[in-house]
Amino acid sequence: MPQAKLKMGFKIGIIGTGNVAWHLARNLENSGHVISCVYDREIDKAKQFTLDYFNAKPTNKHNLITIDASIFIMAISDDAIEEVAGNLILPEEAHLFHTSGTKPLSALGYANTNNIGVFYPLQTFSKGKQTDISKVPFCLEAETAESKAVLSKLATSISNEVHFIDSHQRAVIHLSAVVACNFSNHMMSIAKGILESNEMSFDLLKPLVAETINKAIAIGPEAAQTGPARRKDLETLDKQYNSLQNDENVAKIYELVSQHILDYYSE
Amino acid sequence: MPQAKLKMGFKIGIIGTGNVAWHLARNLENSGHVISCVYDREIDKAKQFTLDYFNAKPTNKHNLITIDASIFIMAISDDAIEEVAGNLILPEEAHLFHTSGTKPLSALGYANTNNIGVFYPLQTFSKGKQTDISKVPFCLEAETAESKAVLSKLATSISNEVHFIDSHQRAVIHLSAVVACNFSNHMMSIAKGILESNEMSFDLLKPLVAETINKAIAIGPEAAQTGPARRKDLETLDKQYNSLQNDENVAKIYELVSQHILDYYSE
Repeated sequence: MPQAKLKMGFKIGIIGTGNVAWHLARNLENSGHVISCVYDREIDKAKQFTLDYFNAKPTNKHNLITIDASIFIMAISDDAIEEVAGNLILPEEAHLFHTSGTKPLSALGYANTNNIGVFYPLQTFSKGKQTDISKVPFCLEAETAESKAVLSKLATSISNEVHFIDSHQRAVIHLSAVVACNFSNHMMSIAKGILESNEMSFDLLKPLVAETINKAIAIGPEAAQTGPARRKDLETLDKQYNSLQNDENVAKIYELVSQHILDYYSE
Repeated sequence: MPQAKLKMGFKIGIIGTGNVAWHLARNLENSGHVISCVYDREIDKAKQFTLDYFNAKPTNKHNLITIDASIFIMAISDDAIEEVAGNLILPEEAHLFHTSGTKPLSALGYANTNNIGVFYPLQTFSKGKQTDISKVPFCLEAETAESKAVLSKLATSISNEVHFIDSHQRAVIHLSAVVACNFSNHMMSIAKGILESNEMSFDLLKPLVAETINKAIAIGPEAAQTGPARRKDLETLDKQYNSLQNDENVAKIYELVSQHILDYYSE
Protein backbone atom coordinates (compact mmCIF):
# COMPACT_ATOMS: atom_id res chain seq x y z
CA MET A 1 0.00 0.00 0.00
CA PRO A 2 2.64 2.56 -0.92
CA GLN A 3 -0.02 4.96 -2.18
CA ALA A 4 -1.81 5.01 1.18
CA LYS A 5 1.53 5.44 2.92
CA LEU A 6 2.42 8.37 0.68
CA LYS A 7 -0.92 10.03 1.28
CA MET A 8 -0.26 9.90 5.00
CA GLY A 9 3.03 11.66 4.41
CA PHE A 10 6.38 11.43 6.12
CA LYS A 11 7.43 12.98 9.39
CA ILE A 12 10.41 15.13 8.55
CA GLY A 13 13.10 16.98 10.46
CA ILE A 14 14.62 20.02 8.77
CA ILE A 15 18.29 20.78 9.45
CA GLY A 16 18.93 24.42 8.58
CA THR A 17 16.84 27.56 8.38
CA GLY A 18 17.88 29.25 5.12
CA ASN A 19 15.94 29.77 1.89
CA VAL A 20 16.24 26.16 0.69
CA ALA A 21 15.12 24.85 4.09
CA TRP A 22 12.18 27.23 4.15
CA HIS A 23 10.93 26.47 0.63
CA LEU A 24 11.32 22.71 1.06
CA ALA A 25 9.54 22.74 4.42
CA ARG A 26 6.69 24.84 3.06
CA ASN A 27 6.18 22.66 -0.01
CA LEU A 28 6.55 19.39 1.87
CA GLU A 29 3.96 20.52 4.40
CA ASN A 30 1.63 21.60 1.59
CA SER A 31 1.96 18.09 0.13
CA GLY A 32 0.79 16.40 3.31
CA HIS A 33 4.06 15.76 5.09
CA VAL A 34 4.63 16.84 8.68
CA ILE A 35 7.61 18.98 9.71
CA SER A 36 8.47 17.56 13.14
CA CYS A 37 11.46 19.68 14.04
CA VAL A 38 13.70 22.45 12.79
CA TYR A 39 17.36 22.43 13.81
CA ASP A 40 19.74 25.37 13.74
CA ARG A 41 22.85 25.80 15.84
CA GLU A 42 21.39 29.17 16.76
CA ILE A 43 18.14 28.49 18.59
CA ASP A 44 16.73 31.92 17.74
CA LYS A 45 16.90 31.12 14.05
CA ALA A 46 15.11 27.83 14.63
CA LYS A 47 12.43 29.60 16.65
CA GLN A 48 12.07 32.31 14.02
CA PHE A 49 11.61 29.63 11.36
CA THR A 50 8.76 27.94 13.25
CA LEU A 51 6.96 31.28 13.52
CA ASP A 52 6.33 30.96 9.78
CA TYR A 53 3.28 28.79 10.33
CA PHE A 54 5.20 25.57 10.99
CA ASN A 55 4.11 23.35 13.89
CA ALA A 56 7.66 22.08 14.17
CA LYS A 57 9.71 21.92 17.38
CA PRO A 58 12.66 24.32 17.18
CA THR A 59 15.95 22.93 18.50
CA ASN A 60 19.68 23.56 18.59
CA LYS A 61 20.55 20.19 20.14
CA HIS A 62 22.55 17.66 18.11
CA ASN A 63 20.73 14.86 19.83
CA LEU A 64 17.55 14.35 17.81
CA ILE A 65 16.96 10.75 18.87
CA THR A 66 13.61 11.52 20.47
CA ILE A 67 12.29 13.45 17.46
CA ASP A 68 9.30 11.73 15.82
CA ALA A 69 10.64 11.79 12.26
CA SER A 70 11.88 9.20 9.79
CA ILE A 71 13.56 11.63 7.38
CA PHE A 72 16.00 14.46 8.09
CA ILE A 73 16.77 16.94 5.32
CA MET A 74 19.92 19.04 5.63
CA ALA A 75 19.79 22.39 3.88
CA ILE A 76 22.90 24.06 5.25
CA SER A 77 26.05 25.54 3.71
CA ASP A 78 28.22 23.03 1.85
CA ASP A 79 31.15 23.45 4.19
CA ALA A 80 29.12 22.52 7.27
CA ILE A 81 27.57 19.30 5.92
CA GLU A 82 30.26 16.83 6.99
CA GLU A 83 30.64 18.20 10.50
CA VAL A 84 26.94 18.54 11.24
CA ALA A 85 26.23 15.08 9.78
CA GLY A 86 28.87 13.62 12.08
CA ASN A 87 27.49 15.36 15.16
CA LEU A 88 23.77 14.67 14.78
CA ILE A 89 22.31 11.77 16.73
CA LEU A 90 19.36 10.57 14.69
CA PRO A 91 16.64 8.06 15.50
CA GLU A 92 17.48 4.49 14.49
CA GLU A 93 17.01 3.76 10.77
CA ALA A 94 16.32 7.43 10.05
CA HIS A 95 17.08 8.73 6.57
CA LEU A 96 19.47 11.66 6.21
CA PHE A 97 19.57 13.61 2.93
CA HIS A 98 21.62 16.65 1.97
CA THR A 99 20.50 19.18 -0.63
CA SER A 100 23.84 20.24 -2.12
CA GLY A 101 24.71 20.27 -5.80
CA THR A 102 28.43 20.02 -5.17
CA LYS A 103 29.02 17.81 -2.14
CA PRO A 104 29.25 14.05 -2.71
CA LEU A 105 26.93 11.59 -1.04
CA SER A 106 29.89 10.49 1.07
CA ALA A 107 29.82 13.86 2.87
CA LEU A 108 27.18 12.16 5.01
CA GLY A 109 29.51 9.22 5.72
CA TYR A 110 29.92 10.02 9.42
CA ALA A 111 26.19 10.04 10.16
CA ASN A 112 24.84 7.41 12.55
CA THR A 113 22.68 5.89 9.78
CA ASN A 114 23.36 4.12 6.49
CA ASN A 115 20.20 5.51 4.92
CA ILE A 116 21.87 8.51 3.38
CA GLY A 117 21.03 10.30 0.17
CA VAL A 118 21.11 13.49 -1.86
CA PHE A 119 17.91 15.48 -2.39
CA TYR A 120 19.12 18.30 -4.66
CA PRO A 121 16.57 20.78 -6.01
CA LEU A 122 17.97 22.39 -9.18
CA GLN A 123 16.59 25.85 -8.47
CA THR A 124 17.48 29.09 -6.71
CA PHE A 125 15.07 30.12 -3.96
CA SER A 126 14.39 33.61 -2.63
CA LYS A 127 12.81 34.33 0.71
CA GLY A 128 9.18 35.32 0.40
CA LYS A 129 8.97 34.48 -3.31
CA GLN A 130 6.83 31.51 -4.35
CA THR A 131 8.34 28.91 -6.65
CA ASP A 132 6.29 26.31 -8.50
CA ILE A 133 8.04 23.35 -6.89
CA SER A 134 6.26 20.86 -9.16
CA LYS A 135 8.45 22.08 -12.04
CA VAL A 136 11.73 22.07 -10.11
CA PRO A 137 14.00 19.18 -11.17
CA PHE A 138 15.08 17.11 -8.16
CA CYS A 139 18.37 15.28 -8.63
CA LEU A 140 18.54 12.29 -6.32
CA GLU A 141 21.27 9.92 -5.23
CA ALA A 142 20.94 7.16 -2.63
CA GLU A 143 23.24 4.87 -0.67
CA THR A 144 20.78 2.07 0.12
CA ALA A 145 17.81 0.53 -1.67
CA GLU A 146 15.66 1.72 1.18
CA SER A 147 16.79 5.33 0.98
CA LYS A 148 16.36 5.19 -2.79
CA ALA A 149 12.71 4.24 -2.34
CA VAL A 150 12.13 6.92 0.28
CA LEU A 151 13.89 9.64 -1.77
CA SER A 152 11.80 8.75 -4.79
CA LYS A 153 8.52 8.92 -2.85
CA LEU A 154 9.51 12.15 -1.17
CA ALA A 155 10.56 13.88 -4.41
CA THR A 156 7.62 12.71 -6.51
CA SER A 157 5.24 13.91 -3.80
CA ILE A 158 6.25 17.53 -4.57
CA SER A 159 7.79 17.56 -8.07
CA ASN A 160 7.07 16.13 -11.51
CA GLU A 161 10.76 16.31 -12.48
CA VAL A 162 12.56 13.63 -10.51
CA HIS A 163 15.89 12.21 -11.70
CA PHE A 164 18.27 9.73 -10.11
CA ILE A 165 21.79 10.75 -11.05
CA ASP A 166 25.25 9.79 -9.87
CA SER A 167 27.90 12.07 -8.40
CA HIS A 168 29.63 12.55 -11.77
CA GLN A 169 26.38 13.65 -13.39
CA ARG A 170 25.70 16.00 -10.51
CA ALA A 171 29.11 17.59 -11.03
CA VAL A 172 28.31 18.03 -14.73
CA ILE A 173 24.95 19.62 -13.90
CA HIS A 174 26.62 21.97 -11.45
CA LEU A 175 29.27 22.99 -13.99
CA SER A 176 26.63 23.64 -16.65
CA ALA A 177 24.59 25.68 -14.18
CA VAL A 178 27.64 27.82 -13.41
CA VAL A 179 28.07 28.55 -17.11
CA ALA A 180 24.39 29.02 -18.00
CA CYS A 181 23.37 30.96 -14.88
CA ASN A 182 26.32 32.46 -13.00
CA PHE A 183 28.19 33.46 -16.17
CA SER A 184 25.05 34.83 -17.90
CA ASN A 185 24.28 36.86 -14.81
CA HIS A 186 27.82 38.26 -14.85
CA MET A 187 27.43 39.21 -18.53
CA MET A 188 24.56 41.40 -17.33
CA SER A 189 26.78 43.00 -14.70
CA ILE A 190 29.33 43.80 -17.40
CA ALA A 191 26.63 45.25 -19.66
CA LYS A 192 25.27 47.28 -16.75
CA GLY A 193 28.76 48.68 -16.17
CA ILE A 194 29.15 49.63 -19.84
CA LEU A 195 25.80 51.44 -19.81
CA GLU A 196 26.39 53.20 -16.49
CA SER A 197 29.83 54.44 -17.47
CA ASN A 198 28.00 56.16 -20.33
CA GLU A 199 25.30 57.52 -18.06
CA MET A 200 22.59 55.15 -19.13
CA SER A 201 20.61 52.70 -17.03
CA PHE A 202 20.51 48.89 -17.19
CA ASP A 203 16.70 49.31 -17.06
CA LEU A 204 16.86 50.07 -20.78
CA LEU A 205 18.02 46.53 -21.50
CA LYS A 206 15.71 44.63 -19.17
CA PRO A 207 12.86 43.93 -21.63
CA LEU A 208 15.35 42.69 -24.23
CA VAL A 209 17.17 40.49 -21.72
CA ALA A 210 13.92 38.95 -20.51
CA GLU A 211 12.74 38.21 -24.04
CA THR A 212 16.14 36.84 -25.09
CA ILE A 213 16.05 34.27 -22.31
CA ASN A 214 12.41 33.38 -22.95
CA LYS A 215 13.36 32.70 -26.55
CA ALA A 216 16.38 30.58 -25.63
CA ILE A 217 14.18 28.49 -23.35
CA ALA A 218 11.38 28.20 -25.90
CA ILE A 219 13.34 27.34 -29.05
CA GLY A 220 16.79 26.44 -27.69
CA PRO A 221 19.82 28.73 -27.43
CA GLU A 222 21.38 27.75 -30.77
CA ALA A 223 18.28 28.65 -32.78
CA ALA A 224 17.86 31.80 -30.68
CA GLN A 225 21.42 33.07 -31.15
CA THR A 226 21.63 36.50 -32.79
CA GLY A 227 24.17 39.31 -32.88
CA PRO A 228 27.23 40.36 -34.87
CA ALA A 229 29.27 37.19 -34.18
CA ARG A 230 26.38 34.97 -35.25
CA ARG A 231 25.98 37.08 -38.44
CA LYS A 232 29.76 36.98 -39.00
CA ASP A 233 29.63 40.79 -39.07
CA LEU A 234 33.38 41.29 -38.60
CA GLU A 235 33.16 45.06 -39.04
CA THR A 236 30.87 45.46 -36.01
CA LEU A 237 32.96 42.96 -34.01
CA ASP A 238 36.12 45.00 -34.67
CA LYS A 239 34.38 48.27 -33.87
CA GLN A 240 32.93 46.98 -30.60
CA TYR A 241 36.20 45.31 -29.57
CA ASN A 242 38.11 48.52 -30.18
CA SER A 243 35.61 50.55 -28.18
CA LEU A 244 36.49 48.41 -25.13
CA GLN A 245 40.18 49.24 -25.06
CA ASN A 246 39.82 51.15 -21.80
CA ASP A 247 38.92 47.86 -20.07
CA GLU A 248 41.38 45.19 -21.11
CA ASN A 249 39.66 42.33 -19.27
CA VAL A 250 36.22 43.01 -20.70
CA ALA A 251 37.82 43.37 -24.14
CA LYS A 252 39.38 39.90 -23.70
CA ILE A 253 36.03 38.40 -22.72
CA TYR A 254 34.43 40.11 -25.73
CA GLU A 255 37.09 38.69 -28.05
CA LEU A 256 37.04 35.17 -26.66
CA VAL A 257 33.25 34.76 -26.54
CA SER A 258 32.78 36.35 -29.98
CA GLN A 259 35.42 34.05 -31.44
CA HIS A 260 33.72 31.07 -29.84
CA ILE A 261 30.38 32.07 -31.38
CA LEU A 262 32.04 32.55 -34.80
CA ASP A 263 33.64 29.09 -34.59
CA TYR A 264 30.51 27.48 -33.15
CA TYR A 265 28.37 28.42 -36.15
CA SER A 266 30.88 27.76 -38.93
CA GLU A 267 30.93 24.37 -40.59
CA MET B 1 -4.31 70.83 -31.13
CA PRO B 2 -1.52 68.23 -31.08
CA GLN B 3 -3.65 65.87 -29.00
CA ALA B 4 -6.43 65.79 -31.59
CA LYS B 5 -3.85 65.31 -34.32
CA LEU B 6 -2.32 62.38 -32.44
CA LYS B 7 -5.69 60.74 -31.91
CA MET B 8 -6.28 60.84 -35.64
CA GLY B 9 -3.01 59.08 -36.15
CA PHE B 10 -0.39 59.18 -38.88
CA LYS B 11 -0.53 57.60 -42.30
CA ILE B 12 2.48 55.33 -42.46
CA GLY B 13 4.33 53.39 -45.11
CA ILE B 14 6.20 50.29 -43.99
CA ILE B 15 9.41 49.39 -45.84
CA GLY B 16 10.19 45.73 -45.19
CA THR B 17 8.17 42.67 -44.26
CA GLY B 18 10.17 40.94 -41.50
CA ASN B 19 9.40 40.51 -37.80
CA VAL B 20 10.19 44.10 -36.84
CA ALA B 21 8.06 45.45 -39.69
CA TRP B 22 5.18 43.18 -38.74
CA HIS B 23 5.19 44.00 -35.01
CA LEU B 24 5.56 47.73 -35.60
CA ALA B 25 2.77 47.77 -38.17
CA ARG B 26 0.45 45.75 -35.92
CA ASN B 27 1.06 47.97 -32.89
CA LEU B 28 0.89 51.23 -34.83
CA GLU B 29 -2.41 50.18 -36.34
CA ASN B 30 -3.72 49.20 -32.91
CA SER B 31 -2.82 52.68 -31.69
CA GLY B 32 -4.91 54.42 -34.32
CA HIS B 33 -2.39 54.94 -37.10
CA VAL B 34 -3.07 53.84 -40.65
CA ILE B 35 -0.69 51.60 -42.58
CA SER B 36 -0.95 52.96 -46.12
CA CYS B 37 1.50 50.73 -47.94
CA VAL B 38 3.93 47.90 -47.47
CA TYR B 39 7.04 47.77 -49.63
CA ASP B 40 9.21 44.75 -50.32
CA ARG B 41 11.44 44.23 -53.33
CA GLU B 42 9.64 40.88 -53.66
CA ILE B 43 5.99 41.69 -54.33
CA ASP B 44 4.83 38.30 -53.01
CA LYS B 45 6.24 39.11 -49.59
CA ALA B 46 4.47 42.46 -49.60
CA LYS B 47 1.21 40.80 -50.60
CA GLN B 48 1.64 38.10 -47.96
CA PHE B 49 2.17 40.80 -45.35
CA THR B 50 -1.06 42.59 -46.20
CA LEU B 51 -2.98 39.32 -45.83
CA ASP B 52 -2.34 39.67 -42.08
CA TYR B 53 -5.33 41.97 -41.65
CA PHE B 54 -3.61 45.11 -42.93
CA ASN B 55 -5.51 47.35 -45.33
CA ALA B 56 -2.20 48.49 -46.78
CA LYS B 57 -1.32 48.57 -50.47
CA PRO B 58 1.44 46.06 -51.24
CA THR B 59 4.15 47.33 -53.58
CA ASN B 60 7.63 46.57 -54.87
CA LYS B 61 8.05 49.90 -56.66
CA HIS B 62 10.68 52.37 -55.46
CA ASN B 63 8.49 55.22 -56.50
CA LEU B 64 6.19 55.84 -53.56
CA ILE B 65 5.41 59.45 -54.42
CA THR B 66 1.69 58.80 -54.80
CA ILE B 67 1.36 56.93 -51.50
CA ASP B 68 -0.84 58.76 -49.00
CA ALA B 69 1.59 58.68 -46.07
CA SER B 70 3.67 61.21 -44.17
CA ILE B 71 5.98 58.71 -42.44
CA PHE B 72 7.92 55.80 -43.88
CA ILE B 73 9.49 53.29 -41.49
CA MET B 74 12.29 51.08 -42.79
CA ALA B 75 12.62 47.74 -41.06
CA ILE B 76 15.03 45.95 -43.35
CA SER B 77 18.45 44.36 -42.92
CA ASP B 78 21.21 46.78 -41.91
CA ASP B 79 23.20 46.25 -45.08
CA ALA B 80 20.29 47.27 -47.33
CA ILE B 81 19.40 50.53 -45.58
CA GLU B 82 21.66 52.91 -47.52
CA GLU B 83 20.82 51.51 -50.92
CA VAL B 84 17.06 51.32 -50.42
CA ALA B 85 16.99 54.80 -48.85
CA GLY B 86 18.78 56.16 -51.90
CA ASN B 87 16.40 54.47 -54.32
CA LEU B 88 13.03 55.31 -52.75
CA ILE B 89 11.13 58.24 -54.14
CA LEU B 90 9.06 59.56 -51.26
CA PRO B 91 6.29 62.17 -51.16
CA GLU B 92 7.54 65.71 -50.52
CA GLU B 93 8.36 66.45 -46.86
CA ALA B 94 7.83 62.82 -45.91
CA HIS B 95 9.66 61.48 -42.85
CA LEU B 96 11.92 58.46 -43.26
CA PHE B 97 13.03 56.52 -40.18
CA HIS B 98 15.17 53.41 -39.92
CA THR B 99 14.89 50.93 -37.06
CA SER B 100 18.49 49.73 -36.75
CA GLY B 101 20.54 49.67 -33.55
CA THR B 102 23.83 49.78 -35.39
CA LYS B 103 23.47 51.98 -38.46
CA PRO B 104 24.00 55.72 -38.05
CA LEU B 105 21.36 58.26 -38.89
CA SER B 106 23.49 59.25 -41.86
CA ALA B 107 22.71 55.89 -43.50
CA LEU B 108 19.56 57.70 -44.67
CA GLY B 109 21.62 60.53 -46.15
CA TYR B 110 20.77 59.72 -49.77
CA ALA B 111 17.02 59.84 -49.23
CA ASN B 112 15.03 62.51 -51.09
CA THR B 113 13.96 64.11 -47.78
CA ASN B 114 15.77 65.86 -44.92
CA ASN B 115 13.26 64.60 -42.39
CA ILE B 116 15.23 61.53 -41.44
CA GLY B 117 15.45 59.79 -38.09
CA VAL B 118 16.07 56.59 -36.15
CA PHE B 119 13.16 54.72 -34.59
CA TYR B 120 14.94 51.86 -32.82
CA PRO B 121 12.90 49.47 -30.66
CA LEU B 122 15.22 47.80 -28.14
CA GLN B 123 13.56 44.41 -28.32
CA THR B 124 13.70 41.15 -30.24
CA PHE B 125 10.48 40.20 -32.01
CA SER B 126 9.26 36.75 -33.00
CA LYS B 127 6.65 36.09 -35.62
CA GLY B 128 3.30 35.23 -34.12
CA LYS B 129 4.34 36.08 -30.57
CA GLN B 130 2.77 39.11 -28.92
CA THR B 131 5.07 41.65 -27.27
CA ASP B 132 3.84 44.32 -24.86
CA ILE B 133 5.06 47.21 -26.99
CA SER B 134 4.22 49.76 -24.29
CA LYS B 135 7.21 48.47 -22.29
CA VAL B 136 9.65 48.35 -25.20
CA PRO B 137 12.24 51.16 -24.98
CA PHE B 138 12.33 53.20 -28.20
CA CYS B 139 15.66 54.90 -28.85
CA LEU B 140 15.17 57.88 -31.12
CA GLU B 141 17.45 60.15 -33.08
CA ALA B 142 16.38 62.92 -35.45
CA GLU B 143 17.98 65.12 -38.09
CA THR B 144 15.51 68.01 -38.07
CA ALA B 145 13.34 69.64 -35.42
CA GLU B 146 10.35 68.54 -37.39
CA SER B 147 11.35 64.88 -37.52
CA LYS B 148 12.19 65.06 -33.81
CA ALA B 149 8.63 66.13 -33.06
CA VAL B 150 7.12 63.47 -35.31
CA LEU B 151 9.36 60.71 -33.91
CA SER B 152 8.42 61.66 -30.39
CA LYS B 153 4.70 61.60 -31.14
CA LEU B 154 4.95 58.35 -33.01
CA ALA B 155 6.95 56.58 -30.28
CA THR B 156 4.90 57.86 -27.34
CA SER B 157 1.73 56.74 -29.10
CA ILE B 158 2.81 53.09 -28.66
CA SER B 159 5.42 53.01 -25.86
CA ASN B 160 5.93 54.45 -22.40
CA GLU B 161 9.71 54.14 -22.70
CA VAL B 162 10.85 56.75 -25.18
CA HIS B 163 14.44 58.05 -25.19
CA PHE B 164 16.24 60.44 -27.49
CA ILE B 165 19.83 59.31 -27.76
CA ASP B 166 22.74 60.14 -30.01
CA SER B 167 24.67 57.78 -32.26
CA HIS B 168 27.41 57.23 -29.65
CA GLN B 169 24.85 56.23 -27.02
CA ARG B 170 23.17 53.92 -29.50
CA ALA B 171 26.50 52.21 -30.13
CA VAL B 172 26.96 51.79 -26.37
CA ILE B 173 23.46 50.33 -26.03
CA HIS B 174 24.14 47.93 -28.87
CA LEU B 175 27.44 46.80 -27.35
CA SER B 176 25.82 46.24 -23.96
CA ALA B 177 22.98 44.29 -25.60
CA VAL B 178 25.53 42.05 -27.34
CA VAL B 179 27.15 41.28 -23.98
CA ALA B 180 23.95 40.94 -21.92
CA CYS B 181 21.89 39.06 -24.51
CA ASN B 182 23.98 37.46 -27.25
CA PHE B 183 26.75 36.37 -24.87
CA SER B 184 24.33 35.11 -22.19
CA ASN B 185 22.51 33.14 -24.83
CA HIS B 186 25.78 31.59 -25.96
CA MET B 187 26.61 30.64 -22.36
CA MET B 188 23.44 28.57 -22.52
CA SER B 189 24.58 26.91 -25.73
CA ILE B 190 27.86 25.99 -24.04
CA ALA B 191 26.02 24.64 -20.98
CA LYS B 192 23.70 22.66 -23.25
CA GLY B 193 26.74 21.14 -24.96
CA ILE B 194 28.28 20.15 -21.62
CA LEU B 195 25.05 18.47 -20.53
CA GLU B 196 24.44 16.71 -23.85
CA SER B 197 27.97 15.34 -24.08
CA ASN B 198 27.13 13.67 -20.76
CA GLU B 199 23.78 12.42 -22.01
CA MET B 200 21.66 14.89 -20.10
CA SER B 201 19.18 17.43 -21.43
CA PHE B 202 19.29 21.23 -21.26
CA ASP B 203 15.64 20.96 -20.12
CA LEU B 204 17.00 20.17 -16.65
CA LEU B 205 18.45 23.65 -16.38
CA LYS B 206 15.57 25.65 -17.82
CA PRO B 207 13.73 26.43 -14.56
CA LEU B 208 16.99 27.56 -12.94
CA VAL B 209 17.95 29.71 -15.93
CA ALA B 210 14.53 31.38 -15.99
CA GLU B 211 14.62 32.13 -12.27
CA THR B 212 18.23 33.38 -12.43
CA ILE B 213 17.32 35.97 -15.03
CA ASN B 214 14.14 36.97 -13.22
CA LYS B 215 16.25 37.60 -10.15
CA ALA B 216 18.87 39.63 -12.04
CA ILE B 217 16.12 41.81 -13.47
CA ALA B 218 14.34 42.19 -10.13
CA ILE B 219 17.27 42.94 -7.81
CA GLY B 220 20.08 43.74 -10.27
CA PRO B 221 22.79 41.35 -11.50
CA GLU B 222 25.39 42.24 -8.87
CA ALA B 223 23.11 41.44 -5.95
CA ALA B 224 21.90 38.32 -7.76
CA GLN B 225 25.36 36.91 -8.50
CA THR B 226 25.98 33.47 -7.00
CA GLY B 227 28.30 30.55 -7.75
CA PRO B 228 31.81 29.39 -6.88
CA ALA B 229 33.62 32.48 -8.22
CA ARG B 230 31.33 34.80 -6.25
CA ARG B 231 31.94 32.69 -3.11
CA LYS B 232 35.69 32.62 -3.82
CA ASP B 233 35.44 28.83 -3.70
CA LEU B 234 38.80 28.19 -5.38
CA GLU B 235 38.60 24.44 -4.87
CA THR B 236 35.42 24.15 -6.97
CA LEU B 237 36.83 26.58 -9.57
CA ASP B 238 39.94 24.41 -9.98
CA LYS B 239 37.93 21.22 -10.13
CA GLN B 240 35.52 22.58 -12.76
CA TYR B 241 38.31 24.14 -14.82
CA ASN B 242 40.20 20.84 -14.85
CA SER B 243 37.09 18.93 -15.89
CA LEU B 244 37.00 21.06 -19.06
CA GLN B 245 40.43 20.10 -20.36
CA ASN B 246 38.93 18.21 -23.30
CA ASP B 247 37.64 21.55 -24.65
CA GLU B 248 40.39 24.14 -24.51
CA ASN B 249 38.27 27.06 -25.68
CA VAL B 250 35.48 26.50 -23.20
CA ALA B 251 38.12 26.06 -20.48
CA LYS B 252 39.57 29.46 -21.43
CA ILE B 253 36.14 31.10 -21.25
CA TYR B 254 35.57 29.43 -17.88
CA GLU B 255 38.89 30.73 -16.58
CA LEU B 256 38.51 34.27 -17.89
CA VAL B 257 34.93 34.81 -16.75
CA SER B 258 35.56 33.22 -13.35
CA GLN B 259 38.64 35.41 -12.86
CA HIS B 260 36.60 38.47 -13.82
CA ILE B 261 33.93 37.59 -11.25
CA LEU B 262 36.62 37.02 -8.58
CA ASP B 263 38.17 40.42 -9.32
CA TYR B 264 34.80 42.16 -9.64
CA TYR B 265 33.75 41.27 -6.10
CA SER B 266 37.07 41.80 -4.31
CA GLU B 267 37.76 45.12 -2.68
